[in-house]
Amino acid sequence: MPRFPEIADAASATRGAVYSTVAARLAAHSGERYPLHIGDTWMEPPAGCRMEDLHVAEYPGMHRYAPVAGLPTLLEAIAARVSARSGQATAVDELLITSGATGALAAAVTAIAGPGDEVLILAPYWPLIEGIVHQRLAIPVPVPAFAGEVADAEALIAALEARLSPRSVAVYLNTPNNPTGRVLPRAWVEAVAAWARSRGLWILADEVYEDYIYAGEHVYTRPLAPERTLAAHSFSKAYGMAGNRCGYLIGPAEVIVHARKAAAHTFYSTPTAAQIAAERVLAGPGDAWVRDARARYQALGEAAAARLGVPAPAGSTFLFLDVAEHLDERGLGGLLERCADRGLLIAPGPSFGPYPTHVRLCFTSAPPEVVERGVEILAAILGR
Amino acid sequence: MPRFPEIADAASATRGAVYSTVAARLAAHSGERYPLHIGDTWMEPPAGCRMEDLHVAEYPGMHRYAPVAGLPTLLEAIAARVSARSGQATAVDELLITSGATGALAAAVTAIAGPGDEVLILAPYWPLIEGIVHQRLAIPVPVPAFAGEVADAEALIAALEARLSPRSVAVYLNTPNNPTGRVLPRAWVEAVAAWARSRGLWILADEVYEDYIYAGEHVYTRPLAPERTLAAHSFSKAYGMAGNRCGYLIGPAEVIVHARKAAAHTFYSTPTAAQIAAERVLAGPGDAWVRDARARYQALGEAAAARLGVPAPAGSTFLFLDVAEHLDERGLGGLLERCADRGLLIAPGPSFGPYPTHVRLCFTSAPPEVVERGVEILAAILGR
Repeated sequence: MPRFPEIADAASATRGAVYSTVAARLAAHSGERYPLHIGDTWMEPPAGCRMEDLHVAEYPGMHRYAPVAGLPTLLEAIAARVSARSGQATAVDELLITSGATGALAAAVTAIAGPGDEVLILAPYWPLIEGIVHQRLAIPVPVPAFAGEVADAEALIAALEARLSPRSVAVYLNTPNNPTGRVLPRAWVEAVAAWARSRGLWILADEVYEDYIYAGEHVYTRPLAPERTLAAHSFSKAYGMAGNRCGYLIGPAEVIVHARKAAAHTFYSTPTAAQIAAERVLAGPGDAWVRDARARYQALGEAAAARLGVPAPAGSTFLFLDVAEHLDERGLGGLLERCADRGLLIAPGPSFGPYPTHVRLCFTSAPPEVVERGVEILAAILGR
Repeated sequence: MPRFPEIADAASATRGAVYSTVAARLAAHSGERYPLHIGDTWMEPPAGCRMEDLHVAEYPGMHRYAPVAGLPTLLEAIAARVSARSGQATAVDELLITSGATGALAAAVTAIAGPGDEVLILAPYWPLIEGIVHQRLAIPVPVPAFAGEVADAEALIAALEARLSPRSVAVYLNTPNNPTGRVLPRAWVEAVAAWARSRGLWILADEVYEDYIYAGEHVYTRPLAPERTLAAHSFSKAYGMAGNRCGYLIGPAEVIVHARKAAAHTFYSTPTAAQIAAERVLAGPGDAWVRDARARYQALGEAAAARLGVPAPAGSTFLFLDVAEHLDERGLGGLLERCADRGLLIAPGPSFGPYPTHVRLCFTSAPPEVVERGVEILAAILGR
């Protein structure tokens, strides 16, 4: 039967914004605001790689469509870079340039999961992965692991095994981890890859913070199981270009074909100017910009962690705090409202998995002095 | 059961590119190329509205994420413009800014259609709508109408009625029409809207060529059935900004909420710079640019049509030709290869519905003198 005015199941299954009540409180606040709930950076992208640097005289037709797969010159630059960095030889047909890593993971999930399929999601996780799975009418199965639930690779695999079902099709992992700031040890990533292979699962590897590691090393998942890994990367996080919407997906060529169709039928192509900016950043000032940003981010993370009395993050741009002891009868919503009353926005734990008493704070989403004042407010509210 | 290395049904149901064989032929051609298969323009966007005009000094943070719904200032400008142009009062919460009209229609279909649902698609149609429906595991039901199949509004409704089923959830119409260049008369649009209401269906109105009409008038669908119409519009087509990826969806606020979630989980947000460029074009030189482009497009369409012996288009940037009498035993593929051997790319009829002997040509996708030479090649091949 026609379903007007009802909406589709995939739409109703997907959660929307969680900020409505907090937004009202924030609107009543007239002072400075501290938007530490978003994963972003206050830094402008490198000079020479900004929109103002992209001239029609140099790039005629730069406002026209790019090919769905991406600009050939950018594809070649990324293939060379991925081959060198990850140690896994990567061809152009194993790449898809996408509307950020969100576009990469949405296209990847479309290619491999459908109604009723289960995707095991190591938690805490990047919030949108849950909704991306819901959009396919598939079922996200959180596997709590990185907030202290598992102590070693063996326990990690036991947690996955306990949630495996005949409907499982994939396992998602996110390292450096948003929201915890953890960098997964090599043994853990190797164990997940080997287990996924033994169980016939796809692997979704979200590695958008690969450049922001302050302790330990980034372990690329794809070289460990290239036949089944779909890895998402981002110019947004690496170079302060989130508004450009440019990331990429790497995977087996025979899956990328299908991910490319998903991309063509959702955002069509990645913005042409964003791809030119990405080419320029790879060819020019990108590495130096990252070195500078990494040093600044590390100092900010350490300062915020010290003020809040939690361990410094090993990677990413986030702190994830258990605030259970500071909740009153209004629960986490009450705490978020108390923060919003003073202009501070932080993200609620349930966005990242079964974490009803946690909050996430991004220590790079505003200029350092603004972050510092926001952290002071949170410290005061938490009595630290 | 885990399905690695199989892929998901929605991915396998969606068609990919149809150009593989033709691309090989084109690669062997060393002379000038005539890319008339793509819907695009050779014109650069208005001065003042190009990426080079968007400076960090004027727009600090312009490379950061925009809100998922869109920049508030652009939303307000579009709401005012849509209210004035369509006569339908439009609020900001009835709008979603998207990665082009593709992003708008993908989000709209996600909100209203799911597995097994049927979407009636008036044909010939914009090629991607078929795949967008497949991506939801829904079923596109072509309703041939605009290539001479129906003579009046009554016959149009009879064609729709004949394909209505208990699974029908929506009807899609595209005016000015890509690929036929037709502009649907008011009586036809009114009839579709009234019929959809009587049958409890959603309406998907693709109106991206609203500014490019050379005969007749554009009839906005949404004012005729605002409670059920989701209308897609584009800065790409209007202002030569396809590579920016900025369009918008208009619909009931309670549906836009769900379309916004679909957008957040596929491309996240529309590029920030693209939205600033859109604001600038609406506030400044957009109307004058469109007047100029319209006059040029009209002259090009008339010249191409005259040379090929078909009626001049009433709107859009396309000609749709039946080439049945020129096909040999190799069929349409053979004709496309003969064109590619001479550097000419045109789009095959089956991309637009059940049109095995048609081709589509875009008369604005290359500079006028290039289009003219491409048209000469086609005329020669067709013996015209």
